[in-house]
Amino acid sequence: MEKNERSTHIPGKEKEVDIINIKGIEDIGYVQPDSILLNSLTPEENTQCQHGLYFQDGEKRVDYILTYHIKKPSSSRSNRQSSLFTDNAFTRSFRRGTARLGRPPPPQPRGDPEVASQDHSMDYHEDDKRFRREEFEGNLRDMGLELEKDEDTKTPGVGFVKIHAPWHVLCREAEFMKLKMPTKKVYEVKQCSGVGAKINTLVNKATEPLHPNVEENRAQNVKHLSYAFSREKQHLFDLSDRDSFFDSKTRASIVFEVLKRTKCTKAKYSMGITSLLGSGVYTAAYPLHDGDVDGENVEPNDRKLLYEEWASYSVFYKYQPIGLVRKYFGEKIGLYFAWLGLYTQMLIPASLVGVIVFLYGCATVDNNIPSMEICHPRNNITMCPLCDRACNYWKLKEACGTARASHLFDNPATVFFSIFMALWAAMFMEHWKRRQMRLNYEWDLTGFEEEEEELKDHPRAEYELCVMQKSLKKEHKTQKTEKEKLTCRDRLPAYMTNIVMMLLMIGVTFAIVFGVILYRISITAALHMSNNPTTRSNVRLMVKTTAAIINLVVILILDEVYGAVARWLTVLEVPKTDKSFEERLIFKTFILKFVNAFTPIIYIAFFRGRLVGRPGSYLYVFESYRLEECAHGGCLMELCIQLSITMLGKQLIQNNLFEIGIPKLKKLIRYIKSKRRSFQEEEREKKLQRYETDHFLEPFAGLTPEYMEMIIQFGFVTLFVASFPLAPLFALLNNIIEIRLDAKKFVAELRRPVAARAKDIGIWYNLLRGVAKVAVIINAFVISFTSDFIPRLVYQYMYSPDGSMHGFVNHTMSYFNVSDFQDGKEPMDPQHLGYQVEMCRYKDYREPPWSNTPYVVSKEFWAVLAARLAFVIVFQNVVMLMSDIVDWLIPDIPKDISLQIHKEKILMVELFMKEEQGKMQFIDSMTPCHGKERNNHAPIARSRSIPHTHSHTHANNF
Amino acid sequence: MEKNERSTHIPGKEKEVDIINIKGIEDIGYVQPDSILLNSLTPEENTQCQHGLYFQDGEKRVDYILTYHIKKPSSSRSNRQSSLFTDNAFTRSFRRGTARLGRPPPPQPRGDPEVASQDHSMDYHEDDKRFRREEFEGNLRDMGLELEKDEDTKTPGVGFVKIHAPWHVLCREAEFMKLKMPTKKVYEVKQCSGVGAKINTLVNKATEPLHPNVEENRAQNVKHLSYAFSREKQHLFDLSDRDSFFDSKTRASIVFEVLKRTKCTKAKYSMGITSLLGSGVYTAAYPLHDGDVDGENVEPNDRKLLYEEWASYSVFYKYQPIGLVRKYFGEKIGLYFAWLGLYTQMLIPASLVGVIVFLYGCATVDNNIPSMEICHPRNNITMCPLCDRACNYWKLKEACGTARASHLFDNPATVFFSIFMALWAAMFMEHWKRRQMRLNYEWDLTGFEEEEEELKDHPRAEYELCVMQKSLKKEHKTQKTEKEKLTCRDRLPAYMTNIVMMLLMIGVTFAIVFGVILYRISITAALHMSNNPTTRSNVRLMVKTTAAIINLVVILILDEVYGAVARWLTVLEVPKTDKSFEERLIFKTFILKFVNAFTPIIYIAFFRGRLVGRPGSYLYVFESYRLEECAHGGCLMELCIQLSITMLGKQLIQNNLFEIGIPKLKKLIRYIKSKRRSFQEEEREKKLQRYETDHFLEPFAGLTPEYMEMIIQFGFVTLFVASFPLAPLFALLNNIIEIRLDAKKFVAELRRPVAARAKDIGIWYNLLRGVAKVAVIINAFVISFTSDFIPRLVYQYMYSPDGSMHGFVNHTMSYFNVSDFQDGKEPMDPQHLGYQVEMCRYKDYREPPWSNTPYVVSKEFWAVLAARLAFVIVFQNVVMLMSDIVDWLIPDIPKDISLQIHKEKILMVELFMKEEQGKMQFIDSMTPCHGKERNNHAPIARSRSIPHTHSHTHANNF
Repeated sequence: MEKNERSTHIPGKEKEVDIINIKGIEDIGYVQPDSILLNSLTPEENTQCQHGLYFQDGEKRVDYILTYHIKKPSSSRSNRQSSLFTDNAFTRSFRRGTARLGRPPPPQPRGDPEVASQDHSMDYHEDDKRFRREEFEGNLRDMGLELEKDEDTKTPGVGFVKIHAPWHVLCREAEFMKLKMPTKKVYEVKQCSGVGAKINTLVNKATEPLHPNVEENRAQNVKHLSYAFSREKQHLFDLSDRDSFFDSKTRASIVFEVLKRTKCTKAKYSMGITSLLGSGVYTAAYPLHDGDVDGENVEPNDRKLLYEEWASYSVFYKYQPIGLVRKYFGEKIGLYFAWLGLYTQMLIPASLVGVIVFLYGCATVDNNIPSMEICHPRNNITMCPLCDRACNYWKLKEACGTARASHLFDNPATVFFSIFMALWAAMFMEHWKRRQMRLNYEWDLTGFEEEEEELKDHPRAEYELCVMQKSLKKEHKTQKTEKEKLTCRDRLPAYMTNIVMMLLMIGVTFAIVFGVILYRISITAALHMSNNPTTRSNVRLMVKTTAAIINLVVILILDEVYGAVARWLTVLEVPKTDKSFEERLIFKTFILKFVNAFTPIIYIAFFRGRLVGRPGSYLYVFESYRLEECAHGGCLMELCIQLSITMLGKQLIQNNLFEIGIPKLKKLIRYIKSKRRSFQEEEREKKLQRYETDHFLEPFAGLTPEYMEMIIQFGFVTLFVASFPLAPLFALLNNIIEIRLDAKKFVAELRRPVAARAKDIGIWYNLLRGVAKVAVIINAFVISFTSDFIPRLVYQYMYSPDGSMHGFVNHTMSYFNVSDFQDGKEPMDPQHLGYQVEMCRYKDYREPPWSNTPYVVSKEFWAVLAARLAFVIVFQNVVMLMSDIVDWLIPDIPKDISLQIHKEKILMVELFMKEEQGKMQFIDSMTPCHGKERNNHAPIARSRSIPHTHSHTHANNF
Repeated sequence: MEKNERSTHIPGKEKEVDIINIKGIEDIGYVQPDSILLNSLTPEENTQCQHGLYFQDGEKRVDYILTYHIKKPSSSRSNRQSSLFTDNAFTRSFRRGTARLGRPPPPQPRGDPEVASQDHSMDYHEDDKRFRREEFEGNLRDMGLELEKDEDTKTPGVGFVKIHAPWHVLCREAEFMKLKMPTKKVYEVKQCSGVGAKINTLVNKATEPLHPNVEENRAQNVKHLSYAFSREKQHLFDLSDRDSFFDSKTRASIVFEVLKRTKCTKAKYSMGITSLLGSGVYTAAYPLHDGDVDGENVEPNDRKLLYEEWASYSVFYKYQPIGLVRKYFGEKIGLYFAWLGLYTQMLIPASLVGVIVFLYGCATVDNNIPSMEICHPRNNITMCPLCDRACNYWKLKEACGTARASHLFDNPATVFFSIFMALWAAMFMEHWKRRQMRLNYEWDLTGFEEEEEELKDHPRAEYELCVMQKSLKKEHKTQKTEKEKLTCRDRLPAYMTNIVMMLLMIGVTFAIVFGVILYRISITAALHMSNNPTTRSNVRLMVKTTAAIINLVVILILDEVYGAVARWLTVLEVPKTDKSFEERLIFKTFILKFVNAFTPIIYIAFFRGRLVGRPGSYLYVFESYRLEECAHGGCLMELCIQLSITMLGKQLIQNNLFEIGIPKLKKLIRYIKSKRRSFQEEEREKKLQRYETDHFLEPFAGLTPEYMEMIIQFGFVTLFVASFPLAPLFALLNNIIEIRLDAKKFVAELRRPVAARAKDIGIWYNLLRGVAKVAVIINAFVISFTSDFIPRLVYQYMYSPDGSMHGFVNHTMSYFNVSDFQDGKEPMDPQHLGYQVEMCRYKDYREPPWSNTPYVVSKEFWAVLAARLAFVIVFQNVVMLMSDIVDWLIPDIPKDISLQIHKEKILMVELFMKEEQGKMQFIDSMTPCHGKERNNHAPIARSRSIPHTHSHTHANNF
């Protein structure tokens, strides 16, 4: 398996590809002239090796690609072009990394012949890199992988290393990774019988058009028994077709596993693949897509199938072909889409109920006694001015519109709906656990341990660089080289920066929210100066809308800023593993984005209009700005407006504009550019190799942004659902698009990600649980403090003379004697309403002027407050208890799955016992003696004593 | 391995033991006369085979024992004796089972020669059983086990089947069970270096006397790498000493595994070992203890070591030798004791803080302004009578004693303490998770999956019997035999009974609590009639104490009753597996015992004295009984008394009386009996075989009662800790005894349990979490509603003129004008205090008589209520948040363990890769061609091509 390798570039030969010889790593020199150079393939040959999906021999499949930067002394033009592609994050981070290492930062290899001195130092680094590459590739060959190089593609400046894992490597690694593979043994999956079966068939027929047109959805009534692959137990598996036994995703992840384990040790510090990528020795590492998604004569492949049956808006109403997604992208991405699918499905009942609740509000708006009383011309109560001096007395009838509107969202049905949504969230969690378990069973992950995978995770490149740097420093001082690690002390500055920046960012959010509040206050104050009621109401609407839009824009901008800040802060922290990097990043992003999205909403829900004082002694901040007050009828209406604008705006703009628009724009720019430089167009005309096409795609950046977007949406759906029952509907509409949008991105616009095994969605599940928990508390407070639900109940059962709501409006308003106005605070135009006002009313529970303690909060205030608080306690604990009961009642493992797993276990033991007996009988027939002496020792021989004739078949058995 | 078997009893030969031949099961007939009978061993031989620990040949270890009942025609006396031992639950349940099967119930085999007709039907059943036994034992031999029978021991009427698992069976089953065994590879466990190491050494030296004198505690700095045992990888393991490679616990569990899998299929319905035990075919199944615990010349064994170093009160201050416990009893029991140990350890800081809080209360009792005000002679307020007519006006000074006492438990420190205890509970949970993880690592369970073990669980005997019965019934009707299972409909009656009985039991608890309340009320009412103040206070104390004692006695009695009822109800339900049986039983027992223990306490904490009305219009139930009122100073004092009596009483009586006293009493009775029948004494003098001694021990009944006792104690420690800070101290003292008590029971008084693997303590962890969660809420309510903490705070910050507590007592009391007494409600002796009372005071927040709305609850009432409720919300959410933060901050896996696990993984891969390379090199040296053709196919040969000379060594390789 060892080959000898040679990668020096011989200029002049235009089309050449290195064929790599295999030989022990020990005798690889830098320049060995004995390699065989072949010309690149002619177009016919190209088709033969399937556009780069196979090695030049057309047989060995390319399982993985490493790319690196090559410098061509000739053709500076095309070289400049290449740097366009290679100047990516990796080379940038390399520059930063080496800068830290104390070496002079290498200039970006531009290859301009004018800058010869720069070229020189660059050459040194290039040589260094090439040397490392050679060592690494030698080590890879040592591990049994086969490599082929292609430095002279149509993409100048980029060299490709094609990696193929031969059968014996696949087997070995599959055994190490404990991959569960289907065995020959097939068993029947029990279908329900009798009535159940009939219903099942009917349901299946009815939902037939909803199923994607993918064959894996059919014939589910038999299943292959799976067993962790082991070379000793090869006979269990159906190895008739070795090429397809391990599918392309598995092969790629196996190669990736080997890559992660391989180290460069010749240099001072051992470097794994992450460090090599980080320091720019390689520029990218990715597996290949299965084929093209469109084009006339493309042969069918999984990617094309996914593109047609999944990543298309025309199939939005269908189920997702999750099995195929998993087969192509691996379990981790499969789980994301399964989760997204389930979430969207679960949103259907939630939005249905939400719409019904909203309609109920609409239908009962005319029967609502408090708003009727407010609107009734006879109950025309004179209200106190809403601010000192500038404002005038007003009639309660003016609040008629808002009172009617707020009934839409503030009625008993919303209380029911928020309980419903809390239980819905619990159901969703449980449902997901079950779905996850079902998928684990279907995907043969039941025996797979998560930790193993995670613990194997290699240190990140940045971490290794940092440790290296520290070792170097220490070495300078002490001349000792020992294994270093980053201590708390090394990290203290980063941690401090983290804390300070996080607080600063949260402070910025608060400041901006406060700024918007000031904007609203000052405009409103100016407004009160004007006397024209039409401008006034117009301006008020305008202020509300503009404020909400400003908030939205700020949220959108800060969202992007915070994403970048969180990433920067996490990079500063230099976490050790990718897993810890991801967790820290998620944690920070989650906090910042949540604070960003929900601060204005929380302000409106719980702080606005709480501390306003009373007529005659309104509270002021900064001496001149009065705290905001809600319109008569509660703040719920404004909360609702803010919520709907934020949610709709975020979804429309972030999803549609950013996710759809920007790629389109990019394409347009590229198109215009390519028109300008038409020579490049020609080059594009030529058929690119698969690995080149994939190289042009964006690298896969993880599922974090996708999950994050969804979890914030989940926040909108659950946190304030008491005030906005239409949220689930908006979310549903958004998600139907979102699924296909993400699918398109994964299938057509990203490099294929390395398949990662995962049993669950990890930290996201905990975040969802956390949001659902917080939602219960927030909803309890929204219902009891933001809405008028509790005061209405208290009035009805404690104060109402006839048990009805009549008189409620009157009861909620206190009296104010205008003679109690301090000097300078009475309205400038007391005759504004046309008559002399002696007593005006305001919305608060305070003692009347004629009591012993005028204008002090009254007993009713305390009674209502106690009722509100009691409601919070009862609601929170009852809903949490109900969620726990739902959690407890629904078993985490679906019954049929647990039966199947049990059955599989039994079948497995049976299979092995039969095998044992077979061996036993075989031995019995081999040994002639049946006597008593057999009892003392166990049978001797083993099947291995039979001579192996088909040595080729068993060649890979170790 | 197959032997031919013969078990017919040949009468006349007194001492005989069957030697069992091994032969294929196919030709086992019922009576085959060709077996070889040997005489039983002489006493010398007996010592040789180590008192029954080995087969007669002195080499094969007895791994498991099955016992069955044998009928001896002769010597009815000894037979009667035997029935004493065999008439246990199994035979009883068999009788019930067969009765259900429609057969005539067989009489208990007494063997009296007079009742010949009964003998006849019994003989039939005996034959049937013997037939089944023979089939089962044949099947066992088929599985490779070796059996030896001993029907003629010194225990008449009981036959013993000794089971030995030979090496190849052990290997096969270990592979199936994926047992992790230590490999030859040893690696160093990293010790902390530098200062850490020094501190560590110091701590170790300081705690030296605390460590038990067991060698496994030493030399922990190297560890064997463990790997799931596999016969193909035998070379990895150190098999030099095959006898000790699998220890006795592992051997027993392996045999048990085979037993569970083996079925009798010849009869109409297949029966597993559980059914066979259930139907009395076998009477018991147990593994053997390692040896005797005491006696002069007993050779050292693990059991003796445990007895001396663990199960002894003299080592109460030492750590437990958990490793040895696990080695002897298996992981499940090891985890119980590790948990109990950690819980006891964690109680030390809790009780320390508790004592400090109590002492703080004692120290500040003289500075407490409210109690000073109550006791001060100058503030001598006239209080209203506490009941209508019979009671008199009284002076507030009379309440001085209770007011001072209640300060001990009602001071700001208790608020701190209940927050502390909530966090303590969270810490305990986290600590346990870490300890569990550490133990998992040390015990090589890190890769072991719980579910596998659980899913394999076989149906319980009762379930199988029930299914059989149903099938039989159906067969009668439809003549079809198909696999049946119990449907919801079959179980409906049982479920209904369950629900009704549970409600009834809870009702009984409530009724009894209510009865005690009535007792208290009526005595108190009678008391008020008397005029003598000394009798009055004496009787009041007596009433309180007797009521608490009655409550305690009732709790103790009902505890036993409820245990039995829960078991009976669960048996009625016929759960399918042992696991589900256990879970249902735990669930029911938990509910009943918790309700039983905490109902009186919850009544006192939250209901007593809440709805008493006011002077002049006290509330009555049943027209004559007034609802109870607490003494002045809150109910906290009474709650505290009730708690301490219940907790102390339960622990003292249940633990010391029941668990220590009753076994002693039994021994005494046995001693007296044996004196009477001295001939039996003689028999006892003879040395019994190990399996006979163990047969006389109690069977192991599961860990449920032990855990249940502890969880109820945990409830006492956490639920009402706000009112009783000494609870952790009491619990600590109890647990120090409890550990050694349980240890003694397991080591000396119970049959050895089959070792069960377990990664965690299962459902108990969830129950603990649940209790801890409920504790937060209950403590919040106790602090805010039962104690006077909130009213004091409200007074201090809202009403106090100078911000101090002066005037608080006055503020909490309302005025009552004696002229407002309705007719017949005024005190009979208004001049009792020596002067005419015009205005009296009572403890409530009500409007004074001179207000517009006299005697209506005042604004202060609502303000205090709102404050109380707000405190509950804040306390609950803050404490829960803090618990979550503790949960989140403390990683579940200790860092060193996660590093070790990681290291192990890497070492494992390295080991395998080395092996691979070794093979590769070997092949390279075998194949002469080094040329290019090697590149196309992988190496061919495998190590198996070497001829095996030591066939005996590899004999077990399949």
